[in-house]
Amino acid sequence: MTEEIGVGMVGHAFMGAVHSHAWRSVHRFFDVPLTPRLAALGGRDAARTKEASAKYGWAATETDWRALVARDDVHVVDICTPGDTHAEIALAALAAGKHVLCEKPLANSVAEAEAMAAAAEDAARRGVRSMVAFNYRRVPAIALARAIVAEGRIGDVRHVRAVYLQDWLSDPEAPMTWRLRRELAGSGALGDLGAHIVDAAQYVTGDLITGVSATTETFVTSRPDGDGRGEVTVDDAAVFLARFSSGALATFEATRYASGRKNAMRLEVNGSRGSLAFDFESMNELSVFEADGREAGFRRILVTEPDHPYLAAWWPPGHLLGYEHTFTHEIADFLTAIGDGADPSPGFAEGLRVQRVLAAVEESAARQSTWTTIGDAR
Amino acid sequence: MTEEIGVGMVGHAFMGAVHSHAWRSVHRFFDVPLTPRLAALGGRDAARTKEASAKYGWAATETDWRALVARDDVHVVDICTPGDTHAEIALAALAAGKHVLCEKPLANSVAEAEAMAAAAEDAARRGVRSMVAFNYRRVPAIALARAIVAEGRIGDVRHVRAVYLQDWLSDPEAPMTWRLRRELAGSGALGDLGAHIVDAAQYVTGDLITGVSATTETFVTSRPDGDGRGEVTVDDAAVFLARFSSGALATFEATRYASGRKNAMRLEVNGSRGSLAFDFESMNELSVFEADGREAGFRRILVTEPDHPYLAAWWPPGHLLGYEHTFTHEIADFLTAIGDGADPSPGFAEGLRVQRVLAAVEESAARQSTWTTIGDAR
Amino acid sequence: MTEEIGVGMVGHAFMGAVHSHAWRSVHRFFDVPLTPRLAALGGRDAARTKEASAKYGWAATETDWRALVARDDVHVVDICTPGDTHAEIALAALAAGKHVLCEKPLANSVAEAEAMAAAAEDAARRGVRSMVAFNYRRVPAIALARAIVAEGRIGDVRHVRAVYLQDWLSDPEAPMTWRLRRELAGSGALGDLGAHIVDAAQYVTGDLITGVSATTETFVTSRPDGDGRGEVTVDDAAVFLARFSSGALATFEATRYASGRKNAMRLEVNGSRGSLAFDFESMNELSVFEADGREAGFRRILVTEPDHPYLAAWWPPGHLLGYEHTFTHEIADFLTAIGDGADPSPGFAEGLRVQRVLAAVEESAARQSTWTTIGDAR
Amino acid sequence: MTEEIGVGMVGHAFMGAVHSHAWRSVHRFFDVPLTPRLAALGGRDAARTKEASAKYGWAATETDWRALVARDDVHVVDICTPGDTHAEIALAALAAGKHVLCEKPLANSVAEAEAMAAAAEDAARRGVRSMVAFNYRRVPAIALARAIVAEGRIGDVRHVRAVYLQDWLSDPEAPMTWRLRRELAGSGALGDLGAHIVDAAQYVTGDLITGVSATTETFVTSRPDGDGRGEVTVDDAAVFLARFSSGALATFEATRYASGRKNAMRLEVNGSRGSLAFDFESMNELSVFEADGREAGFRRILVTEPDHPYLAAWWPPGHLLGYEHTFTHEIADFLTAIGDGADPSPGFAEGLRVQRVLAAVEESAARQSTWTTIGDAR
Ligand SMILES: NC(=O)C1=CN([C@@H]2O[C@H](COP(=O)(O)OP(=O)(O)OC[C@H]3O[C@@H](n4cnc5c(N)ncnc54)[C@H](O)[C@@H]3O)[C@@H](O)[C@H]2O)C=CC1
Ligand SMILES: NC(=O)C1=CN([C@@H]2O[C@H](COP(=O)(O)OP(=O)(O)OC[C@H]3O[C@@H](n4cnc5c(N)ncnc54)[C@H](O)[C@@H]3O)[C@@H](O)[C@H]2O)C=CC1
Ligand SMILES: NC(=O)C1=CN([C@@H]2O[C@H](COP(=O)(O)OP(=O)(O)OC[C@H]3O[C@@H](n4cnc5c(N)ncnc54)[C@H](O)[C@@H]3O)[C@@H](O)[C@H]2O)C=CC1
Ligand SMILES: NC(=O)C1=CN([C@@H]2O[C@H](COP(=O)(O)OP(=O)(O)OC[C@H]3O[C@@H](n4cnc5c(N)ncnc54)[C@H](O)[C@@H]3O)[C@@H](O)[C@H]2O)C=CC1
Repeated sequence: MTEEIGVGMVGHAFMGAVHSHAWRSVHRFFDVPLTPRLAALGGRDAARTKEASAKYGWAATETDWRALVARDDVHVVDICTPGDTHAEIALAALAAGKHVLCEKPLANSVAEAEAMAAAAEDAARRGVRSMVAFNYRRVPAIALARAIVAEGRIGDVRHVRAVYLQDWLSDPEAPMTWRLRRELAGSGALGDLGAHIVDAAQYVTGDLITGVSATTETFVTSRPDGDGRGEVTVDDAAVFLARFSSGALATFEATRYASGRKNAMRLEVNGSRGSLAFDFESMNELSVFEADGREAGFRRILVTEPDHPYLAAWWPPGHLLGYEHTFTHEIADFLTAIGDGADPSPGFAEGLRVQRVLAAVEESAARQSTWTTIGDAR
Repeated sequence: MTEEIGVGMVGHAFMGAVHSHAWRSVHRFFDVPLTPRLAALGGRDAARTKEASAKYGWAATETDWRALVARDDVHVVDICTPGDTHAEIALAALAAGKHVLCEKPLANSVAEAEAMAAAAEDAARRGVRSMVAFNYRRVPAIALARAIVAEGRIGDVRHVRAVYLQDWLSDPEAPMTWRLRRELAGSGALGDLGAHIVDAAQYVTGDLITGVSATTETFVTSRPDGDGRGEVTVDDAAVFLARFSSGALATFEATRYASGRKNAMRLEVNGSRGSLAFDFESMNELSVFEADGREAGFRRILVTEPDHPYLAAWWPPGHLLGYEHTFTHEIADFLTAIGDGADPSPGFAEGLRVQRVLAAVEESAARQSTWTTIGDAR
Repeated sequence: MTEEIGVGMVGHAFMGAVHSHAWRSVHRFFDVPLTPRLAALGGRDAARTKEASAKYGWAATETDWRALVARDDVHVVDICTPGDTHAEIALAALAAGKHVLCEKPLANSVAEAEAMAAAAEDAARRGVRSMVAFNYRRVPAIALARAIVAEGRIGDVRHVRAVYLQDWLSDPEAPMTWRLRRELAGSGALGDLGAHIVDAAQYVTGDLITGVSATTETFVTSRPDGDGRGEVTVDDAAVFLARFSSGALATFEATRYASGRKNAMRLEVNGSRGSLAFDFESMNELSVFEADGREAGFRRILVTEPDHPYLAAWWPPGHLLGYEHTFTHEIADFLTAIGDGADPSPGFAEGLRVQRVLAAVEESAARQSTWTTIGDAR
Repeated sequence: MTEEIGVGMVGHAFMGAVHSHAWRSVHRFFDVPLTPRLAALGGRDAARTKEASAKYGWAATETDWRALVARDDVHVVDICTPGDTHAEIALAALAAGKHVLCEKPLANSVAEAEAMAAAAEDAARRGVRSMVAFNYRRVPAIALARAIVAEGRIGDVRHVRAVYLQDWLSDPEAPMTWRLRRELAGSGALGDLGAHIVDAAQYVTGDLITGVSATTETFVTSRPDGDGRGEVTVDDAAVFLARFSSGALATFEATRYASGRKNAMRLEVNGSRGSLAFDFESMNELSVFEADGREAGFRRILVTEPDHPYLAAWWPPGHLLGYEHTFTHEIADFLTAIGDGADPSPGFAEGLRVQRVLAAVEESAARQSTWTTIGDAR
């Protein structure tokens, strides 16, 4: 077993459970330079945090995240809370010299994200690492897609088609949640789902979005909340056109109202010599088209071969991976970067880049969809 | 055999071949009130027109479409030429009291389309019928989709996702064609492919697009043309956001640069209670999701049952139909409308409606994607 | 237009309608050396035959097939009747010097098929051609599959998996038909569906079945028939193991009780270097696997490119073909063979080969599934 | 945390890694009545066993499985070794009063399996539980399929179509392994893959196979082995027809030569009122057909809803599970049975039932495929 590294995690619900699993399991499958020790779990409610801690295997609990950050046995802070807390926790952790893994979207505003990126850059100079948890980059099929584009195999990218479709809000009587409150979530489907496809599209193409034209919608404006009803203050859906710096044209859509689509994070990229298509609902597959002769066609690659990204750690071909594997991969990469003294990717600067796109989407939507460029230095 | 009706068709290449087949075959499968007689085929070159006429089974040829329109044995004029000629031929034919079937898009401009719609309305009062050839409405799966939405089965429509993807221009050295010249084609992928998905989306939802935000692109600006190179003066791709009068949000994309996609005319509609998905590359299938209980899922309906639209005329279940069937259906419906003395759908007014959307797309694209409403009376 | 050749067809229901369409249309799409003239349609009932004749475009009718065979204007006899009549009509037609196209299965017994093959061989010496209507060979995807195997692209064939699944008898109250009577149909699902997959498997692999082990079943032994019930005297389903002369192992299944499968004629072939998979319910697609490097996968080829078999005659890529196209192809090939003075394939000897396999299946099923070799020494 | 139960596991390669993960993780997701303690790992080589133990998180190691069985801190023995050792280890463990989880196939012969089933029955009377590790029963989609059949939703079962296709032996130069030696593996693809589909087919239908007709093949008879070549003494592929006691007809195929198929464990069941289809390469999906009206079709259910089997423990809908989850489910069920003092399923008697089918397959294959009944008391 390699040297231990103490982890403190804030938040213990959905992401908390997934991240716990990854911290617990990563060294069982990957040769990581550091072995995580699940030192402390942070939450607001003492009883619920204790219960979660027992269930997920943490050594201690804290009800104040500042106390957690301050602990000597915590070397990494993992932020699994809603977006309103990301900046504050991350800044404090970096200031305290702790490596930071922060859930996406990086922040609730460009201003916060800028502060975080600046702090991360500063911390990196002191050997302190930070990463934003865009786990879809760690889907083997997406990583393979990136490699194929990078090798020039599909030629110049002309089209990107990215959607992230869920349907859990289709029912107007589905209850209120923090995800529907602007002050907590920053935005709605845009930040929740749109952030993923913006990042994934930039990652796979290796290119940046330079401008957008957008519109957003709130289909259901209030929802059951305790005894009464709560107001929905975020978008339910966001659609936007975009350009990449290469000139490629893109369409994006994020919604939680696509009945029947459960987690359809889909990406298609068309280049001058070939194409790629991915759908998370078939996450172990990548479809690749290479224009070559009379029997061309989309090849359904089952991305489970030992020479595919991350797969050497797992099972024989055809023995599929699931959702949580993407987090195990993410944390393996994070630990490797820390061990190597290198900056992990995506770092906070990349998280900021996504945040700027999200902000431009909202700005365009507020200005009759007028084309809005992503200023890299505003 | 029912009474004969003489048909004169102008244009004898791609659409000419398909329409010929439909005129020749329709009464072999459908109980139509009128039996087409392939009276005269019009083209510009005498030799090539004669050759086509022999191949496709026409009784006579004309090298001047005016002569064709004027023939006594021609009661229906079928326009299978590029868009620059539609208005002129259609107006002349209607004036001469001939029923008109006109290929899509109806015209190359809103002004032309307005004149055509006005003439058609006028002619209809005199019992002269006209129809625009949006054949995708006659794909049984699309007609079934329309019926399912109309029955309220998917509830209120919230999202429409429509793309029409081809790839025959991916290669920058693919040769010049009339489809790439504005003066002949009106627009590029927009009018060629976009027109179909605008019509289909309006048809299936039973709703109208009220505004768009758009951008277009010409990836390859000149192409081999004879010995030299010709300038491409239309869009290669058009992407746009749209709203329906119901409030539904939509994304549209038309391109001939989607490597590997051959004729991917796809439509997905998400409603409050269910969804529909269609892809022309699997044209005999419709996927339907109805939110009902723990075993909900997209149902792949093979649209080949005798009680599905148009299917009673064909083969037993599972014996698929192909592309040209959609034209046979179209012409069966057209003949039925003529026989019944009813206005066929889509009529020229519907063709005009599509034209207005295309114009709004171009306008928005020219104005930095600013939201552009579709004026119904401008 | 090329020289005319007079066709006389017996039977005017399902196959009659499809063949009529093909005879009427073939020269509109293919450059055939002879242009069919729909000379005479044969049936038993004068009124119904006349009605069908008018609908399908035949010039005359006959109520005695012998009279039809004897007509001077009939040069080709097309047999679209149940299996009990194939031998008698075919032998008479060949004796009269008429080319013969005979629906599958060739006959209702090996003895009949032997007589037919002998007569065909004899007739061929006199320039009279005969062919058995295994139309699935004319699915472009199947023809492409054959070409790929023949080029050695998938290496040595090790496995064949062939099923033909329909479900129209699932309901025990579905009515009686000639297809369920041994004296008319010869066998049940075996001859109806099994014959197709035996032929297709032999065609695609280019190899012969040498032995089988089989079992058959009749799930529903009587069915509504007029006012009473009729006894089902054929198999409802047949399953069998088989060996090819190469040593390849195969499984076959033919049934009309596979609920939800409408026309699932499926074939998969696994070789030492690659694989092929086909499903008629997606008849425009062929899936091909070639073992080559880390991104291998099944390639979904949309078999609609101009250089794919038969496709040059049709539409641009992605514009799908349907069921009846396979018959148009079949008749194009038949006419070409006649014009070229060559023997068309599959000839009656090939039809006999299939018949021997069907007989071996029945024999094995009657002998506790004991392995039964296909004797080639008739 | 619930009371601990000490686990001793023998074998630490493929299954060893998967089972370790499940033992480590099960209580993090499921409310199990007993919390596993990874007490001791057994292997033959001290160094390799220690290494594996550290990697997978075991507290101690043993190089003699008898010592492991004898340990006081071991209450459960988990057998993850090749088939030649199953009987000996299981009998010793049961005799020592240890619960036993044994990998499949239960044994290398019917005689061994009979002894094991007898011992298990005996042990059960003393409160000692045993289970055979047919993990595919724990795929949520398969468990859902079982429930749907049990509710009578697809009516009477008429057809079963089961294949288990892999391709890792396609290359004749793939190296020798214990899986290709009869004395270690018992049989080849038959016991390795065929056992799974026999069990799954019996499980999903809730019915037993009564007879088979089979043939087997060894395509490559020797393979590279160290410096020389080793003889392959098992089948490379097994195909068989089968009957269920209900009268349903089935086809089975197990092979490791199906190029391009990586882990295609597929099952289709056709009943009088509906059908089910499953493919492990899309393990989170179940396709269900219910014959009901004009819009029937196979419904692709994404089996990730909280009310689907095992899913309440995991992520929101659409967040897929992978291969190893099936083992976590298996062990959750095993622990629950132990805690409840109930016999887990599949018990050794069920493992014996599968063994009898495998033996009948080999017997039939040796007797020219003659139908061979599965004696339940021979
Ligand atoms: N990478 C991915 O795919 C996903 C990322 N996320 C992101 O993860 C973050 C958390 O989301 P979920 O786990 O889904 O939410 P959740 O609602 O399931 O859990 C949030 C947790 O944060 C805790 N929390 C909230 N405010 C807190 C505060 N002020 N101090 C301490 N703890 C606090 C809650 O008690 C709870 O344990 C969000 O930023 C979200 O966008 C969420 C889901 C998927
Ligand atoms: N409904 C559908 O799916 C499709 C519709 N179309 C539409 O059909 C129309 C024709 O397109 P295609 O057949 O594909 O083009 P094409 O290039 O294959 O054929 C055009 C025909 O028009 C003739 N033509 C051109 N200018 C003429 C003139 N001034 N006078 C007489 N004949 C003239 C040409 O000689 C040629 O025969 C266009 O409006 C196009 O948008 C085209 C393809 C598919
Ligand atoms: N290639 C393929 O995919 C298919 C081939 N077939 C084969 O085609 C043949 C006909 O089948 P279907 O058209 O489906 O049957 P059908 O029942 O639709 O038509 C049979 C026709 O034969 C006529 N007929 C029956 N006995 C006759 C007799 N003694 N003399 C003159 N006419 C007689 C009937 O009146 C009817 O017009 C069969 O051999 C069948 O196996 C059928 C369907 C598909
Ligand atoms: N449920 C399922 O899906 C699967 C089940 N299996 C079954 O699991 C069992 C093990 O297979 P794998 O793990 O794939 O094989 P493997 O070759 O990966 O591992 C076998 C392990 O057993 C150990 N071993 C062998 N002989 C031993 C002995 N006499 N004493 C102690 N240890 C010994 C080896 O050292 C090795 O650690 C087999 O019965 C196999 O059929 C295998 C793969 C999948």
